[in-house]
This record gives sequence, structure tokens and C-alpha cells, in this order.
Amino acid sequence: MNDRVKNALVSCNALAYGDFTLASGKKSEYYIDIKKASTDPYVLETIADEMAKSIAAAGLKFDLIGGVALGSVPLAVALSLRTKIPYIMVRKEKKDHGTQKLIEGTMTEGSKILMVEDVVTSAGSVSTAVDVVRNAGGIIENVFCVVDRQSGGSELLREKGVELLSLITAEDVLKR
Amino acid sequence: MNDRVKNALVSCNALAYGDFTLASGKKSEYYIDIKKASTDPYVLETIADEMAKSIAAAGLKFDLIGGVALGSVPLAVALSLRTKIPYIMVRKEKKDHGTQKLIEGTMTEGSKILMVEDVVTSAGSVSTAVDVVRNAGGIIENVFCVVDRQSGGSELLREKGVELLSLITAEDVLKR
Repeated sequence: MNDRVKNALVSCNALAYGDFTLASGKKSEYYIDIKKASTDPYVLETIADEMAKSIAAAGLKFDLIGGVALGSVPLAVALSLRTKIPYIMVRKEKKDHGTQKLIEGTMTEGSKILMVEDVVTSAGSVSTAVDVVRNAGGIIENVFCVVDRQSGGSELLREKGVELLSLITAEDVLKR
Repeated sequence: MNDRVKNALVSCNALAYGDFTLASGKKSEYYIDIKKASTDPYVLETIADEMAKSIAAAGLKFDLIGGVALGSVPLAVALSLRTKIPYIMVRKEKKDHGTQKLIEGTMTEGSKILMVEDVVTSAGSVSTAVDVVRNAGGIIENVFCVVDRQSGGSELLREKGVELLSLITAEDVLKR
């Protein structure tokens, strides 16, 4: 577990403890509002710094960082500024008029991309983005997220041959 | 004119000179692909650094930085990391299902927001975002862009009581 990130999330109220009822109707002992973290420059900087350290420690090599629009773009930008590795922004769908590109930024075929994501629950969102990048010729072996809610995300990604890495997990969040 | 930014745009091919025909059919002596700048961490850092210096020199005071989704979010994030002022992301429209918020991030009524934009042509995009923020109770006096193409943008914004600032203008681009 990354204590520095966990403490940063608590400090900006992105992570709160209490009795919460989720949209699904399930009860939860904690609540995550990750936008409070990603729009706070100190917290975003801490997250990018810890992610960069973990990447170096794990010896991960890649050509580009990929962030899913809109939520994970700030993380991709912050990690790019911290590591000086360029990034791409990945849209999950085209708008009606269809003039938008699914991928913004420069990606050549065969580029290796590290996808980043703020919170992974079932991984539906990042999984779609993985397909978009692969369809454009990108290679993805890893998704790195801030919080892995351990709700089927790593299993879904593993089926696609993608390993999910995280700074903290639901289990870490519940350790108090 | 900000020479450091102009040189950075040329170095990453975001600004190219030649004989171009724009989508409108008009001829142009230059072409700007600002995504090449915003997805290059060195160039994005240079832009944010120069913007921060200009803000300090002009004595601008504000509570939040605002970036229009998707294109200007990287600039808002980079300027936020550089200045340690939090930012908000502003959507110009809701998607069909309507569950998305128009403003992501924490903004309270009466907050003063500096909107940032990569390229301003007629200012249609940022003008819509100004309306969204004002409807939510935010106060906007300035839009700060990287490139002002001087194509009616500052006039449109002035009608709304907003002053457009820029790092470089079309006139600067053409000075060689």
C-alpha cells in the first residue's frame, strides 16, 4: 500500500469514511470522490510522483502514457510532466457528428502504451479504451490505477492480457 | 510576443510554415496543430511556465483555473501544477444520457475563474464555457490563450465583458 497517496486522498476529502449507500444500493464503509484528488494540484502531484517511483521500481518500459477522457486525462498529463514521457488522450466513443478523433496526440503503430486510470471498479471504461488503442495499433500490457476497488477489474483486464497495477486497493483503504 | 513559446511550438511541429489551405478553403501561410504541443511534456511545461510568469506580471488574481474539455484540460492541469491553484474542467454540452456534470472539480458561487484555452479563433468554444461557468455562479473576467488567431475572438469575448490575453498572436506567428 502507498501510505503517502492514501493520506493525500484523505486530506483532500477524496476518500471519506462513514456509512454510505452506493448508487447500486450496496452499503460501503468508505466513499471515493477521485475528482477532488485530481483537481487538487498538491494531491495530483503526489499521485504522479508516487506512480513515477513505482514505474521506475518495477522497471516498466513504454513509449507513451494513455489517459481515458475525461476523468483520467489529468493523471496522464501530470505523469507525463513528471516523467517527460508524452501522452495520448483516448475517447471511448465518438460524438454524434463524428469529426472527433478517438485518440488525441501522436501514436505510431507498435508504440507501447501505459494506460493510467483514476479509479478501477469493474474496469469497463479502461477496457474500452484498451480496445481503442489496440485497434489503432498500440501495444498495451499494463493499466496503472490510483485506486483498485477490487471489484472484478483486474480479472476483466487479465482476460485481455493486461495486468492491472495500483497505488492502493480497496483492502488498503479498509485497513485503518 | 513570447519568443520562448513560439520557438517551442515550432520545435514540436505544432506550428509549421508553408502554403496551407484551411478547412474553410482560405489560404494560410502557417498551420497550427496545438495537440502536438499539449501532448509534449517539455512544450506543455514551457507554456505553463510562461503563462504563470505573465499572470504574475499582470497581477491577475483568481481562485480557480478553468479548462474547456477536452482540448484545454491539459493546459489547465499544467498551469495548476505550476501555480498550485486548483482547476475545474468545463464541458460545453452534456452527453445524451445526461448524467455527466458540466463542471468537474470544486467551484463555489462567487469564485473567480481564469479560463485557459489553447487556440482561440472565433472564441465560440471558450465563450460557451464562459456561459456554463457563469450560470453556475462563477465570475470570469479573463480568458488566457496560447495562440490568439485574431479572428474575432477577442471582440466576441469583450461583448461578454471578458478580456482575452494571449502568449502569442497570429501577427506574432507571421513575424519571421
